[in-house]
Amino acid sequence: MKKDYIRPLDIRHGRVDMGHGAGGRAAAQLIEELFLAAFDNEYLRQGDDGAALAIPVGARLVMATDGHVVSPLFFAGGDVGSLSVHGTINDVAMCGAVPLYLAASFILEEGFPLADLKRIVDSMAAASRAAGVPVVTGDTKVVEKGKGDGVFISTTGVGVVAAGVHISGANARPGDAVLLSGTIGEHGVAVLSKRESLDFETTVASDSVALHGLVAAMLAASDGVRVLRDPTRGGLATTLNEIARQSNVGMLLEEAAIPVLPQVEAACELLGLDPLYVANEGKLVAICAPDAAEAVLAAMRAHPLGANAVRIGSVTEDPHRFVQMETSFGGRRVVDWLSGEQLPRIC
Amino acid sequence: MKKDYIRPLDIRHGRVDMGHGAGGRAAAQLIEELFLAAFDNEYLRQGDDGAALAIPVGARLVMATDGHVVSPLFFAGGDVGSLSVHGTINDVAMCGAVPLYLAASFILEEGFPLADLKRIVDSMAAASRAAGVPVVTGDTKVVEKGKGDGVFISTTGVGVVAAGVHISGANARPGDAVLLSGTIGEHGVAVLSKRESLDFETTVASDSVALHGLVAAMLAASDGVRVLRDPTRGGLATTLNEIARQSNVGMLLEEAAIPVLPQVEAACELLGLDPLYVANEGKLVAICAPDAAEAVLAAMRAHPLGANAVRIGSVTEDPHRFVQMETSFGGRRVVDWLSGEQLPRIC
Repeated sequence: MKKDYIRPLDIRHGRVDMGHGAGGRAAAQLIEELFLAAFDNEYLRQGDDGAALAIPVGARLVMATDGHVVSPLFFAGGDVGSLSVHGTINDVAMCGAVPLYLAASFILEEGFPLADLKRIVDSMAAASRAAGVPVVTGDTKVVEKGKGDGVFISTTGVGVVAAGVHISGANARPGDAVLLSGTIGEHGVAVLSKRESLDFETTVASDSVALHGLVAAMLAASDGVRVLRDPTRGGLATTLNEIARQSNVGMLLEEAAIPVLPQVEAACELLGLDPLYVANEGKLVAICAPDAAEAVLAAMRAHPLGANAVRIGSVTEDPHRFVQMETSFGGRRVVDWLSGEQLPRIC
Repeated sequence: MKKDYIRPLDIRHGRVDMGHGAGGRAAAQLIEELFLAAFDNEYLRQGDDGAALAIPVGARLVMATDGHVVSPLFFAGGDVGSLSVHGTINDVAMCGAVPLYLAASFILEEGFPLADLKRIVDSMAAASRAAGVPVVTGDTKVVEKGKGDGVFISTTGVGVVAAGVHISGANARPGDAVLLSGTIGEHGVAVLSKRESLDFETTVASDSVALHGLVAAMLAASDGVRVLRDPTRGGLATTLNEIARQSNVGMLLEEAAIPVLPQVEAACELLGLDPLYVANEGKLVAICAPDAAEAVLAAMRAHPLGANAVRIGSVTEDPHRFVQMETSFGGRRVVDWLSGEQLPRIC
């Protein structure tokens, strides 16, 4: 489409105004000069209200959606843009699917600097390209100053599941191995330390990353993977409780086996947090048949995003569906769900 | 999943709090007792991060997304919930697709009454059931009081396009007929009159409705439909300009042919609006091959949502891509895009 605006968008000094959300010429210009310029692909270029997509014949489809309201918008290791790509790709991947396409819905606050918006959209586009999952359709709305908070991004992903793959949080069975792909707590600590303006000696960067490549390697290595889940909001503890509940089982973890970076330990101590409840955006939990655990763990360790993968425990039979932990001191305690509002707006 | 909360959610007097967005037990309870109770279907019951979906073999997929920030949240003829279902179903349908599944991302403001949230979610569930398009996956986030505005809902739809159907805003050709499915301006007037607390003698209700049934009837009647578009934000005038630009054509409309309810005319006069720029949520524009126009129009008129369908003009060859209108007084004027922020937060 030929551009026919009087002057280009002033990205350096301009701000989002209500007109950018009203569906007229200003909205069209914002979409073309900022969003399309960043995400450019054949699907967006169709220019229709939705995107027509190619999918493999006979595939089973997976669909996942996630709203991203992280505060602050920029943090060490990422921003709301890259997070909105990684978060939704990971939700699709945790269903055992290959993520194919993303849709993005932006809710912008009037007055938000276009330069910051461009930075976010560029980061999102870079994350999408790196993952090989294009943003194929989108929408932008604007709300009055004081009715939003800069930028909220809801992304939706679709993907396809290969024949023979059946992953669900309901599939864990007593005796299964509980695997974790790496260290926990970085994302939450990165966001919170930026929010609280804390300076640690060593900056902790978010682990935000797309995990579909790791998942593909694991599924290729074994057909014994039963559950995949990324421990985001609520952290590892909450995710394991969700799975225990969904599968009607218990779990027994070894505290000493759960890897935490020393700088995350230190930051958590300062912030009064338990790393078990702190959000991750680049880690996954896998529950595997006992005889598959070694092969899956080896496949994880052979992948750059699973180099620190470990077995952290086992699934148990437990009508109470308790997640328990053998502590480093030899005791045993129940690891409960996150309760209350410990960590709002972490993703 | 067995419920294991200490007490049920107090929907009558409770309010959204930050804990409902933190991913722990409170969030799980809100999802189960409010969202799952309303939307209940086999896909949501899977309880995973995404939904595994069945799709027809060899289908072409369509994906569309839309954020809904309408203010006020409730208006005559609908609310943000039903609107978020209709809006996205219509975006999918305007690609010539049969909508199959919806995903919903909620961004809630702390302190929002749970009773209002339930009313919105119930309305959304009713709209989804009536349309036969289930909400199969979702996400909920909470932002602090003053950082949102009650409820924002981003919905994403996927659908499939039948073989041989090729609908796009880029397909209009000179000589084609421009059809409109009914009267214009009701949605925008309904929202604005509620926002401005205006009382008209006759209440104007939003036309918000899912149009995929109408689209199916039109496509069954003829293979000459080239463009479908619902004139939402920016109204009929902006939608026709978008198509003209995308197809690199002009259009010539007859003002007298465009149907507007008398109470909408009256309200627009009072509000200082031109119905051509006022949003619709239950109308569509169709551009058809000249020899298909009669059959398509007959199919529209035979459907309850197209009873007042009319031919409003023709596509012209025009390097300037102007949408022009023969006025009722015999003159001719250019109908431009909506410019500026005439009608913010209308959907």
